[in-house]
Amino acid sequence: MARLSAFGSLVFLISVVVLPTGVLSLWPVPRALDTGYTALKLSPYFNFELDVSSPPSDLVQAVEQAKYYLKNDKLGRLVVGRGSSDQSTVDQAQSLSTLTLALTEGAVVESISTEAVKPLGTRSEEYILTIPSDGSAASLTANSTLGLYRGLTTFGQLWYYYDGVSYTIEAPIAITDSPAYPYRGFCLDTARNYYPVSDLLRTLDAMSWVKINTFHWHVTDSQSFPLEVAEYPELATYGAYSPEEVYTAEDVQYIVSYAGARGIDVLLEIDTPGHTAIIGASHPEYIACFDESPWATFANEPPAGQLRLASPEVTNFTANLIGSVAKTLPSSLFSTGGDELNTNCYTQDYITQQELNSTGMTLNDALNVFTQATHSMLISEGKTPVVWEEMVLDWNLTLSNDTVVMVWISSDDAAAVAAKNFRMVHSPSDYFYLDCGAGEWIGDDPNGNSWCDPFKTWSHAYTFDPLANLTEAQYDLVLGGQQLLWSEQSGPQNLDSIVWPRAATSSEIFWSAAQPGGAALNVTEALPRLHDIRYRMVQRGVNAIQLQPQWCALRPDACDLYA
Amino acid sequence: MARLSAFGSLVFLISVVVLPTGVLSLWPVPRALDTGYTALKLSPYFNFELDVSSPPSDLVQAVEQAKYYLKNDKLGRLVVGRGSSDQSTVDQAQSLSTLTLALTEGAVVESISTEAVKPLGTRSEEYILTIPSDGSAASLTANSTLGLYRGLTTFGQLWYYYDGVSYTIEAPIAITDSPAYPYRGFCLDTARNYYPVSDLLRTLDAMSWVKINTFHWHVTDSQSFPLEVAEYPELATYGAYSPEEVYTAEDVQYIVSYAGARGIDVLLEIDTPGHTAIIGASHPEYIACFDESPWATFANEPPAGQLRLASPEVTNFTANLIGSVAKTLPSSLFSTGGDELNTNCYTQDYITQQELNSTGMTLNDALNVFTQATHSMLISEGKTPVVWEEMVLDWNLTLSNDTVVMVWISSDDAAAVAAKNFRMVHSPSDYFYLDCGAGEWIGDDPNGNSWCDPFKTWSHAYTFDPLANLTEAQYDLVLGGQQLLWSEQSGPQNLDSIVWPRAATSSEIFWSAAQPGGAALNVTEALPRLHDIRYRMVQRGVNAIQLQPQWCALRPDACDLYA
Repeated sequence: MARLSAFGSLVFLISVVVLPTGVLSLWPVPRALDTGYTALKLSPYFNFELDVSSPPSDLVQAVEQAKYYLKNDKLGRLVVGRGSSDQSTVDQAQSLSTLTLALTEGAVVESISTEAVKPLGTRSEEYILTIPSDGSAASLTANSTLGLYRGLTTFGQLWYYYDGVSYTIEAPIAITDSPAYPYRGFCLDTARNYYPVSDLLRTLDAMSWVKINTFHWHVTDSQSFPLEVAEYPELATYGAYSPEEVYTAEDVQYIVSYAGARGIDVLLEIDTPGHTAIIGASHPEYIACFDESPWATFANEPPAGQLRLASPEVTNFTANLIGSVAKTLPSSLFSTGGDELNTNCYTQDYITQQELNSTGMTLNDALNVFTQATHSMLISEGKTPVVWEEMVLDWNLTLSNDTVVMVWISSDDAAAVAAKNFRMVHSPSDYFYLDCGAGEWIGDDPNGNSWCDPFKTWSHAYTFDPLANLTEAQYDLVLGGQQLLWSEQSGPQNLDSIVWPRAATSSEIFWSAAQPGGAALNVTEALPRLHDIRYRMVQRGVNAIQLQPQWCALRPDACDLYA
Repeated sequence: MARLSAFGSLVFLISVVVLPTGVLSLWPVPRALDTGYTALKLSPYFNFELDVSSPPSDLVQAVEQAKYYLKNDKLGRLVVGRGSSDQSTVDQAQSLSTLTLALTEGAVVESISTEAVKPLGTRSEEYILTIPSDGSAASLTANSTLGLYRGLTTFGQLWYYYDGVSYTIEAPIAITDSPAYPYRGFCLDTARNYYPVSDLLRTLDAMSWVKINTFHWHVTDSQSFPLEVAEYPELATYGAYSPEEVYTAEDVQYIVSYAGARGIDVLLEIDTPGHTAIIGASHPEYIACFDESPWATFANEPPAGQLRLASPEVTNFTANLIGSVAKTLPSSLFSTGGDELNTNCYTQDYITQQELNSTGMTLNDALNVFTQATHSMLISEGKTPVVWEEMVLDWNLTLSNDTVVMVWISSDDAAAVAAKNFRMVHSPSDYFYLDCGAGEWIGDDPNGNSWCDPFKTWSHAYTFDPLANLTEAQYDLVLGGQQLLWSEQSGPQNLDSIVWPRAATSSEIFWSAAQPGGAALNVTEALPRLHDIRYRMVQRGVNAIQLQPQWCALRPDACDLYA
């Protein structure tokens, strides 16, 4: 019997700050969590009771998926013996037969996909999950199907497996949960190297397991254009690595619906006016310094090439391109990029100089016209534009007030973005870039290192403070954050291993974050839980790497620096 | 028709130094290579003719494997269009129907496995491969089945595929090849985290593709003992992570035979007297400072624990353990380890101090007795002992003259080992450690970095000079070298991606090495060939990572630093 059974119905509750280390497998940790010391097992006849009238099909599927995970996870507790010591207690435990899912009274029933793409700040992801220790029905309630989905995800993480039985040793469990920030993302570059659709779907699954709610899809770049655009089929025909390495319009719709059903919004980015060289493969006349040599004079990486932003024709083309892609997507967000514009490329481009001279515009003026064209197009499609930080810090542009800014060059730049009163998504290379530390990839540079050395470990990333250097009045400008994979040295071969479990770090920072001014999250407390979600990911077919020798994973804290 | 067809039988030959960049896909590059400009395709009826009487079964299997690769590789040439521009030339090319394999006159026919485990310096890996451009039979000759195996490997790398046809555009081809160094290895730690047998087999396959001939298997360490030892079954029973995470005696024999058939010798290491904490799980009385805290006082990483080397009983146990494993293996080499001995652990161990006091021995004396016991056991089993560098640089031990020393702490230490006149295998952490750069894995150290930062890129590794700081008289002490994966942050999830194609770097350094005093290998020339072997590995099911964006892989030199 459980340690506190003598107390009968007097339930002993502990709060998250004294969480028994390495026992609870939740990631991200709920914002309010009370657990007891009683064992409880899942009945072989366990079932979900969906108390929602006319449930949307993606909710029904989510319940089926949750059932599948409960049956197949079979994750032994990460202690020596993998749960064998729990067995006698669990043998005598009550069985849980039912989890009832219900919406709060008056909630409008919409699909998860519909809820997932609502504007930031208007979605309801909160839920309440209650699991009694006596075997009576557990309950999950939320204001939306999206909230139910988040609660189902949590429920699926509560159970360990040993010898045919799934169980917890911490019933009763009471969780009241909601995200601290509305944007919790993962950004993938599919242009430097291509990823088959199946890799993206598996990544979306893993994202959903840790409540990441935005897939920032950096789909194109200077090296390849793997996106089929109905109005401009030539871009992929000449710009993709091969006809097989293209996301067709059908693929994109499937990815978006797969994401939506998992509570994930797809924020697509067509990076402009830089990072566009490959458009020159089909429209050489649109690209300045197209594949010019030496590339380092004209771009941060090969090949050189940027849209001729001073040209009305190019501006028109770009706005139409962005509009024609954006209108096919349900998200309220769309990114026009805007990073790493190389001025030298334009200075040395005869045609751009001619355009500027003929109109009397500066490069900044021309960029302003160009950006307003693409952003007006987005706004006319009902989208909120998203840009990289240079668009507000390096250039003087007239941008819509609600433009979302990605802070990437340094975490230190957040304050400057806030000073300009823009909302921001933290994507700092000094904390969140998953590709850093893999060495120089440029050829003929054997002593070169990664530009953003060193490798960003999960624990370094975990110390990121979303509110650092901001005034209290600026806190609301922080929408959230994300980890990012730039794919110069990545592809399907290492996608899982370079991304997971590290990309789960920011999901906890932005879901569970300490209150403003409160204590930082604690890496020592977090590590056993991160091991846990990592082992669960492997169990579910995602090749998340080992963070430590298994000896350490089975002995919480034994491998800490001063242990 | 090919460019030089007008010359008829007057074949235009070019040497490796003016190799057409990105065309030839050989890795490691043969020591003497002449190629022409004529296209030649493989006949749909292409076959191997094995002109060897009573061929050993592993040679027959090797030919079958070569056939399989020829049929299934389907590797497009790494240029824009992936070989489409070759098509008209290839259409009109002659077809090659036969490769004849023969041993030189008087050669004794032995199996590849038998040849692969002969003592270093006594194996014959050389071969001659001749491929005429006119479609007449190609020929492969060697002094041994092992040489034929190496030649088959080369033959399999010569062919690109486009639209149903496998072809080369560089016939005629004449290769006379032999390794510069007898030892070309890969070292894997299977103790920090465990790898299923299937992962090891796939790794052996990939090793064979680049002519790596030694698998240095660091099978046990302080964290786990995944090796079944007939005389000491308790070591794995209590020391493996789980009953499923054990290499059984049968597994080991299978791995050894699988390796042998691929020309690979298995050099097993039981690291002693340090790196042995987990032996304390079954024999706590044999281990000093067993799992003592704080671990950092007693060991380089957790858990602390070293064999009580001053105890005759422990010495006897260790020698018997090593003997009982070594006698089951065909290799002439066996490693007793010997790195990172922590003297503080012994200073603070009451039992060790008691033993030393009772005999009047110093720790060095005791280590000498201990090491002579294990090495005598090896020598009595016909093995040559292998040790890490500390055994000759940090301690004053009486070692057999033919002991092989692994230089690991720094490439600078090679000179000191040579000064002591020991043969060495280069395993320098500053060039060849594949795990470096992944950040600190010890818990509660969010600002910690990898101890051997930065990441060792293939191109940095490629600049390694095996003869640096040695006198000409010492050159013969260099047996070769190897790249190594220590598995604190690795496991089956990232094995392929962290090892390949990087571990192929040393295979070329030690197979193709420039002559003593000659020019270093050239990273710019090598990169397109390394891309090629990487794409071929992926085609064969090994998840070797992208070294660059595919845009660069398809455009040799375009992404070089000053391109």
